[in-house]
Amino acid sequence: MILLFTDFGWQGPYVGQMKAAIAARTTTVPVVDLMHDTPAFRPVEAGLLLAALTPRLPRRSVTVAVVDPGVGGERRALMARSRGRWFVGPDNGLLAPLLEADDLHVWSLAVPDGAAPTFHGRDVFAPAAAELAIGHMPTGATGVTDWVRPKADRQRVIYIDAFGNVMTGLREQDLSGRAPAPAGTALPGARTFCDQPPGTPFWYPNSSGLVEIAVNQGSAAEHFRLAVGDPIPLA
Amino acid sequence: MILLFTDFGWQGPYVGQMKAAIAARTTTVPVVDLMHDTPAFRPVEAGLLLAALTPRLPRRSVTVAVVDPGVGGERRALMARSRGRWFVGPDNGLLAPLLEADDLHVWSLAVPDGAAPTFHGRDVFAPAAAELAIGHMPTGATGVTDWVRPKADRQRVIYIDAFGNVMTGLREQDLSGRAPAPAGTALPGARTFCDQPPGTPFWYPNSSGLVEIAVNQGSAAEHFRLAVGDPIPLA
Amino acid sequence: MILLFTDFGWQGPYVGQMKAAIAARTTTVPVVDLMHDTPAFRPVEAGLLLAALTPRLPRRSVTVAVVDPGVGGERRALMARSRGRWFVGPDNGLLAPLLEADDLHVWSLAVPDGAAPTFHGRDVFAPAAAELAIGHMPTGATGVTDWVRPKADRQRVIYIDAFGNVMTGLREQDLSGRAPAPAGTALPGARTFCDQPPGTPFWYPNSSGLVEIAVNQGSAAEHFRLAVGDPIPLA
Repeated sequence: MILLFTDFGWQGPYVGQMKAAIAARTTTVPVVDLMHDTPAFRPVEAGLLLAALTPRLPRRSVTVAVVDPGVGGERRALMARSRGRWFVGPDNGLLAPLLEADDLHVWSLAVPDGAAPTFHGRDVFAPAAAELAIGHMPTGATGVTDWVRPKADRQRVIYIDAFGNVMTGLREQDLSGRAPAPAGTALPGARTFCDQPPGTPFWYPNSSGLVEIAVNQGSAAEHFRLAVGDPIPLA
Repeated sequence: MILLFTDFGWQGPYVGQMKAAIAARTTTVPVVDLMHDTPAFRPVEAGLLLAALTPRLPRRSVTVAVVDPGVGGERRALMARSRGRWFVGPDNGLLAPLLEADDLHVWSLAVPDGAAPTFHGRDVFAPAAAELAIGHMPTGATGVTDWVRPKADRQRVIYIDAFGNVMTGLREQDLSGRAPAPAGTALPGARTFCDQPPGTPFWYPNSSGLVEIAVNQGSAAEHFRLAVGDPIPLA
Repeated sequence: MILLFTDFGWQGPYVGQMKAAIAARTTTVPVVDLMHDTPAFRPVEAGLLLAALTPRLPRRSVTVAVVDPGVGGERRALMARSRGRWFVGPDNGLLAPLLEADDLHVWSLAVPDGAAPTFHGRDVFAPAAAELAIGHMPTGATGVTDWVRPKADRQRVIYIDAFGNVMTGLREQDLSGRAPAPAGTALPGARTFCDQPPGTPFWYPNSSGLVEIAVNQGSAAEHFRLAVGDPIPLA
């Protein structure tokens, strides 16, 4: 299966053009839109989110990750195999949290002649993913041993969903008994939404294993005026 | 074919995670996003909408319906076969309008160990649908004879689309010669948009058989200030 | 492969119902959402956009194009084969820019009994595309030699994407050395976003070959207060 993870949004032809590029190479591999609204132009936060989503995704999948403000510039295009999964994307930190396994191989991808300098998603990453999914090595891939490894601070907001739920980069074990305290006071913890009264803020370990701040039938982002990248104090 | 019908919206990883859970089990069954913007947290209205959409969908399909504010609580997870179609979803009234046939079988689904208490869509309903689509009975399903049957008042707004068209729960035959009168006066009826002057409100039997209120090239919801759940007088 | 190109948006059941109609006829042909946010009710601009996207899409594809304010009225439903690709859509100018090849055949489609007068996307165009994709001629198709050919002025805004990038209908060769001058002064040209300072407006040949106006990490549409249909002066 090929998974798409981008900041393109659902508007415009961009996701569709990536899928057409895949379908031109294989029509038997399912293509799943994992998400297309990672915070725009923020590869570091998007990388933490992708790393949290990945363990519950099927093995033997190929993930195409595109959060790529530097497209067409000097940054390299990467391909990696880590713990049995394949990843394709720009070398800007987006893939870094996934490239920490022992069983790891990383390549630099060649940019084909005629690739549009503003759309490597369609012309570099999607074609490479399609090749991998049918068992071919993309032409011109070269092994590399270094890549961009940004310092990723997990104690921050990395995503806010449509309901206003606030995902942090923290895992439950990072809390060491403390709790998120976005307004200075430790929030109560919970396991589900439905045992909280409407309007009450709380935190819970979300379905991807991240510490998430929520308000039952309300918006935690509005409640605490939080945006992606904001630090989250613990108490 | 597996059809997805949720209030998750297109943002976030939720729909993608459900699809990945299906693709992990079968890659040959097409997965169709029927819609992901049913009114959030409103299983009763969503159930009327799904029941209106279903008769024109292919037989031998499996519909996964998730409008589930009580996820992780006491509500059961249901699976049903009705008129040759399969349905999977929470026992909160969402499926009730579909469970009225003579040829009807209903089961309670088991919640697998390790299922996230906040995301049964990914961990309970999608896996069960994938099993059904390939002809397997989900493990631990138990026949039941009762389920939540809310009183569903059809004379209300059940959905407003992106153009501002207002779907009611009424079918044409429910009108008995009357017409929707959202502002006290009966609206004129029509068959298509293009024979109405722009800006004129009217009602018509929509492509799913529901009485819908529209304004050609305008928003009926804004025109009449209508929201989901509002009653619609007839005159 | 079947490509969907509509102004339906991602909300509501409309795209899903089209896909279900296809999946009822074939489950082996991939269906790709090319885009669903072409400017609503504007077949002429949408046609220029589709014609720009098409050359980079795979041959032997079937494109279903639905921007159809006249649905249910007198306008015909068309099917065409042009340069090895199939197209299906309303006869309102939407397909006209694609119907200029030497190797061209055009048919009028029959409207099946029971088709909803407001939803030919589901009941006429999607079924015809599915038939074509599996090698069948849709029942009742009749060859035609004339169709609606609107005068399409390329020197205008034809699409604005979610980032505020402004696509014009112009190709680079249409400029003849001039440049877009939305505020009276010729914009500088560029090849990629990343070699422009944030906030600076520029134009570039986009990944579909159209002249596009952009602001790095900003909205050109807001910067120049541009909307679809606005003329773009050259200087």
